[in-house]
Amino acid sequence: MATGSAALPTMYPVDGFRLGTASAGIKTPGRKDLVVMAVDAGSTVVGLFTQNAFCAAPVTVAKQHLAQTTPSYLLVNTGNANAGTGEQGIKDALRSCEVLAAATSSRKEQVLPFSTGVIGEPLPMDRLLCGIPDALHALSKNGWNEAAEGILTTDTRAKGASLQYGEDSKITITGITKGSGMIKPNMATMLAYVATDAAVDAELLHRALRLANEKSFNRITVDSDTSTNDAVILAATGSSGVTIDESSFDQFVEQLKIVFIDLAQAIIRDGEGAGKFVSVVVEGAVDSDEALAVAYTIAESPLVKTALAASDPNWGRILAAIGRAGVNNLDVDAVRVHINALLIAEYGCRAASYNEEAGQLAMAPEDIEIHVSLNRGQASETVWTTDLTYEYVRINAEYRT
Amino acid sequence: MATGSAALPTMYPVDGFRLGTASAGIKTPGRKDLVVMAVDAGSTVVGLFTQNAFCAAPVTVAKQHLAQTTPSYLLVNTGNANAGTGEQGIKDALRSCEVLAAATSSRKEQVLPFSTGVIGEPLPMDRLLCGIPDALHALSKNGWNEAAEGILTTDTRAKGASLQYGEDSKITITGITKGSGMIKPNMATMLAYVATDAAVDAELLHRALRLANEKSFNRITVDSDTSTNDAVILAATGSSGVTIDESSFDQFVEQLKIVFIDLAQAIIRDGEGAGKFVSVVVEGAVDSDEALAVAYTIAESPLVKTALAASDPNWGRILAAIGRAGVNNLDVDAVRVHINALLIAEYGCRAASYNEEAGQLAMAPEDIEIHVSLNRGQASETVWTTDLTYEYVRINAEYRT
Repeated sequence: MATGSAALPTMYPVDGFRLGTASAGIKTPGRKDLVVMAVDAGSTVVGLFTQNAFCAAPVTVAKQHLAQTTPSYLLVNTGNANAGTGEQGIKDALRSCEVLAAATSSRKEQVLPFSTGVIGEPLPMDRLLCGIPDALHALSKNGWNEAAEGILTTDTRAKGASLQYGEDSKITITGITKGSGMIKPNMATMLAYVATDAAVDAELLHRALRLANEKSFNRITVDSDTSTNDAVILAATGSSGVTIDESSFDQFVEQLKIVFIDLAQAIIRDGEGAGKFVSVVVEGAVDSDEALAVAYTIAESPLVKTALAASDPNWGRILAAIGRAGVNNLDVDAVRVHINALLIAEYGCRAASYNEEAGQLAMAPEDIEIHVSLNRGQASETVWTTDLTYEYVRINAEYRT
Repeated sequence: MATGSAALPTMYPVDGFRLGTASAGIKTPGRKDLVVMAVDAGSTVVGLFTQNAFCAAPVTVAKQHLAQTTPSYLLVNTGNANAGTGEQGIKDALRSCEVLAAATSSRKEQVLPFSTGVIGEPLPMDRLLCGIPDALHALSKNGWNEAAEGILTTDTRAKGASLQYGEDSKITITGITKGSGMIKPNMATMLAYVATDAAVDAELLHRALRLANEKSFNRITVDSDTSTNDAVILAATGSSGVTIDESSFDQFVEQLKIVFIDLAQAIIRDGEGAGKFVSVVVEGAVDSDEALAVAYTIAESPLVKTALAASDPNWGRILAAIGRAGVNNLDVDAVRVHINALLIAEYGCRAASYNEEAGQLAMAPEDIEIHVSLNRGQASETVWTTDLTYEYVRINAEYRT
């Protein structure tokens, strides 16, 4: 199950950034499961990684390498997360960097490794290493669509976003992502790779990444489970000849946010078992933290999510979630709740104008907005989530068997 | 679905505490849905109530009345929670107290009202009020079993616990509870009523209630959703002639805890869709808060809970949950995880001695203990939870329809 359109948009190539995909047979023979991305010399590359204490071996290695030098290659395998694999996991991640570096006359520190898939199984190194030459051979700036396929796990569809902006001298931003379950990114999501041909220095690019990430991957939850392997990488190749400075920074971030939000929403649309795409908007909060606490309490409530799965306008469960979100001295009489355009609750109870028939109609669409006004301040936040369906339970009860 | 035995234990009567049950047809004709409990004069009564900001009208009224005088009557209806009902809800709760008070020559402040069931529908007052005479007529110290039935909603079975202790002068403690979904009590659970024939002054009884509640109803979660109607009431009638003082207090609390933990575990055994009864034990934590953070992160992880539903020893999901629990500077190499007696993970990865066959065997029983050693301090905590099954989704997608 998934919501919205399954098609990738037009993926504009980014000069200076090439992608090659191969089938290494890591978990399933014949499946695209190995992706190499090559970043031209002179590019800037920044990243954000999971805050999970049990971070995976490739995350540890990628962070170390990124701190040492500018990467020339990103190496991604699916089918195996190389997480919970201890010392051997670190050795395997380093070895995969060495083999790719040797094949490209680079140093291993110029390679960032990424893995996604089952936790706790050793990486099948022979197969992974044998796939590297094929992936290198396939490197092309038009490789985005194939790479979007090559990084998937339980995802049912490839996810990408791409845009160009600017009048005379155009800037391109293109990215891909994967993720469907174990989704509550904390600083980053499962895996995302975004490239631009703008020239951006490292400090500005890092600031742009944090700003875009905060309002996109840090605003989604499928099941409240933060992954061990989350990573988002942003590369700026400079090939457009346009340099981003303080004067053009805000516009660049706005465009970057569009791509990031597209990618983050694509993960929610393909969330495990998803039958609904749900935006939870909380406004009138004292501050952003308060708005987020209310939004996430609603978005992660199993009772709200099962009601959404049934298209049941069960506003009592939404009020109950707001009530336990830890808001200090909440005036329940001031709270108003809409589903899409329909006012469903105010003054601590069901709206006088509400009736069940209108409620059923409001809940029928695939895309639902739960809009909460706390009426106590100026802050607002939006998070995106899915419903909780039989299908979610089936996928996660059967994932390893 | 439910786990363990469905039978109530022997319910010892408590002199000075009587219960009467009636069928008022509040939601389903013919079903026992109205319970009156009468507490003899000279008793001590204390209570704890939900921390949900959207607390139900009867909770508001019960707290006010309890602050004013010692209650003589508890009035409980099922089928309708009188929550999210605004001003009318308060009026209805007060009116039900008035009618019961008039029938028993008491004041309305001597009546505590409790409601459980659907949120957001007005109380059907005519039916409720008409049921009160029948319930009063049925009052008996042997009314525990019927009352345990009369307070249920989506529960599939009645829940009670009862014990007697002491050599020459015996003390009896007997209690009933209800709850199956929207279960993460915060200070108290959905509804629980416990009586003892010990004589205990209000200050000591309140202290005993807090101590017993903290390790029982405050240690369970079905779905992380704190209810709007949680309440636990403890009455001490003094009819045994034994007075609890500082010297006998610890023993009294120990016995009270046994009853409270029995009741809290009964809620988990009857948790919505429950196929497993899961104890999450975290030891070696720096303090109790840290142990609880880890225990609840595991107990509320949808991915851990769906793996439990499939009897899948998916230790990677348990490590991932520990890793996102917010423990400062967690040394992942020091963490050890057992399922029942089987060591499954240590040094940040799968235990060398582990194999899948042994893992499958360990996960097969209905009762599962997930035991986490953090090895960084002396604090330990236990919480109880269920798995997440198709049945949970079905119940909560269909509850109102």
